Amino acid sequence: MISFARGAPAPECIPASLLADCARAAIEHDAAALAYGPVGGYGPLREWLGEQHAVAPGQVLIGNGGLQALGFVAEAMLAGDERRVLVEGPTYDRTLTILARLGADVEPVPMDAEGLDLDALAAALDSGPRPAFVYTIPTFQNPSGRTLDLDRRRALVELLRDRGVTLLEDDPYRLVRFDGEPLPTLHELAGGVGVVHASSFSKTVAPGLRVGYVVLPPELVRAVEAVAVAAYITPALLGQATVWELIRRGAFMPNVERVRALLRARRDAMLTAFERELPSSASWSRPQGGYFVWADLGVDTEELSARAAAAGVAFVKGSDFFPDGGGGETAARLAYSFVSPSEIDEGVAKLAALL
Amino acid sequence: MISFARGAPAPECIPASLLADCARAAIEHDAAALAYGPVGGYGPLREWLGEQHAVAPGQVLIGNGGLQALGFVAEAMLAGDERRVLVEGPTYDRTLTILARLGADVEPVPMDAEGLDLDALAAALDSGPRPAFVYTIPTFQNPSGRTLDLDRRRALVELLRDRGVTLLEDDPYRLVRFDGEPLPTLHELAGGVGVVHASSFSKTVAPGLRVGYVVLPPELVRAVEAVAVAAYITPALLGQATVWELIRRGAFMPNVERVRALLRARRDAMLTAFERELPSSASWSRPQGGYFVWADLGVDTEELSARAAAAGVAFVKGSDFFPDGGGGETAARLAYSFVSPSEIDEGVAKLAALL
Repeated sequence: MISFARGAPAPECIPASLLADCARAAIEHDAAALAYGPVGGYGPLREWLGEQHAVAPGQVLIGNGGLQALGFVAEAMLAGDERRVLVEGPTYDRTLTILARLGADVEPVPMDAEGLDLDALAAALDSGPRPAFVYTIPTFQNPSGRTLDLDRRRALVELLRDRGVTLLEDDPYRLVRFDGEPLPTLHELAGGVGVVHASSFSKTVAPGLRVGYVVLPPELVRAVEAVAVAAYITPALLGQATVWELIRRGAFMPNVERVRALLRARRDAMLTAFERELPSSASWSRPQGGYFVWADLGVDTEELSARAAAAGVAFVKGSDFFPDGGGGETAARLAYSFVSPSEIDEGVAKLAALL
Repeated sequence: MISFARGAPAPECIPASLLADCARAAIEHDAAALAYGPVGGYGPLREWLGEQHAVAPGQVLIGNGGLQALGFVAEAMLAGDERRVLVEGPTYDRTLTILARLGADVEPVPMDAEGLDLDALAAALDSGPRPAFVYTIPTFQNPSGRTLDLDRRRALVELLRDRGVTLLEDDPYRLVRFDGEPLPTLHELAGGVGVVHASSFSKTVAPGLRVGYVVLPPELVRAVEAVAVAAYITPALLGQATVWELIRRGAFMPNVERVRALLRARRDAMLTAFERELPSSASWSRPQGGYFVWADLGVDTEELSARAAAAGVAFVKGSDFFPDGGGGETAARLAYSFVSPSEIDEGVAKLAALL
């Protein structure tokens, strides 16, 4: 099976022998990585993240993966009477699962090639009950691969600031950029006011370490830590200390460069194969980074995915990325991150033969 | 501050340089420890645990610490209409927090020096609504240090089997035994039928690794995995692979022996100091293992704990271990695990001076 479904890094993206050495060194340098620690995570890594995001270390909470940290924030923000959450349509399916479990009323706002449609967002904000928060993945979005441009970033921050609505920015792909200029985070543009920034080391180091974090406005720290305290005594610290050791020895950004090159080759292979193989009725995003291409294939992708699986190719159907499956019926998320360039060629050709 | 409050191992109990080497070797042997993996945890460790508990590896779920795995089970078992949960009075305060969050109606059943009072349990089972499950910490209980003896273990299993009520056995201290004969687990006595067994490597290896697990009856596997899938993509695997490497090289049981000796000396120091220092009105448990002594000090321990803190000694007041604080007003949990024998002498003398 050639898997365009798996939103995970190819094995060669993970610097195993470097991490083996870092894990050993992390414990040798600081046995605190083996004991119960603070609920907010491993101290030296919190301090470094605080510096990166220009906040106090106490505003950083590192959990067992970005998704868990993000779930804590969502739970804290949904603790009041506000149940409505505005998300991008499409958006990350696992966040939809978390929001559904927390009893949120999730409402998708349309996107175009440059990301969230801000007119549609303004209209949604100005009708219906006040939302608990707006959730966005602004850079190389999962599932669409789209990136919110700089003008829209500024306008989005302003729009929510004017209305006093908190923004939850989920940004784990930001450093995995192949082309174009890096953009400021929404958190940065807002000066940290009214924005929660979530990210992770799953895409830049290794997902199995389960090291993800949120950067919180000061007024949210107590509520989010209370949710974390109810969930665990301490997060898994060895992975956090291993990531810190990688950073401490200056090996983090060189590894990100290495990962970028490996993934750029895969992105290029997929876009080239699409141009060559797909019918003119199909259209797709052209991501400048991240893991995913979003394609409109012009046919029912639920039915297509079953036929593709039988032919040895897997992808995720578009409707999985809308609340209650309300959208994306002819779309597909195709991850180029896990497969090799030659598998991409083969898989796209097989898929095209089915269209 | 001399802390009898901290239910954590003394730093010398944690084999840091051995674990540094195991963490490195674990990654070098198997880079899968760095990737997304199955929701049930790291394969080789699941297989070993399955063998230990005479179940299929698929019946073992390893989570980010025993408390999280136990929380998943509680959530799955409370998904139906049954809200009532019977626990020991006193019982572990963090389990009480989890059960409260899940909306359980928690009812304590009295204990005596040999553990749960089975007549009281039978009476509770035969009145009121059918419980979702019964929760017990049968060996070196947190907070009391008490152990359910063999006859009662057999009787407890039979009592619940007759009524078709599931037992949740939380048994993380079992291997940390200083005196007396090891007892079979309730899971073993029940042949695995109707019993969930929960345990962890926090007491035998290191708590910061966050490696805990549950052994499930086949009929519960699907429901518990569904709760885990909603919580995370994969648990933190590096700690699990590190524990497996320790086991693989035959270093696990020798480390348990080393930990036993370190903790036995602390238990002995505390019991000796109690005999010497405490007034005859006080009484206390005499644990054969684990971390804790439970003492009835004959005075209000909420008030005493404030005075003790001012004098530089910390403990946890007994009422924290009863639902809604309904009990244990003159009791205290004193952990000997974290402090040195000489600190124990000094701390008990200070405490006695306040009585």
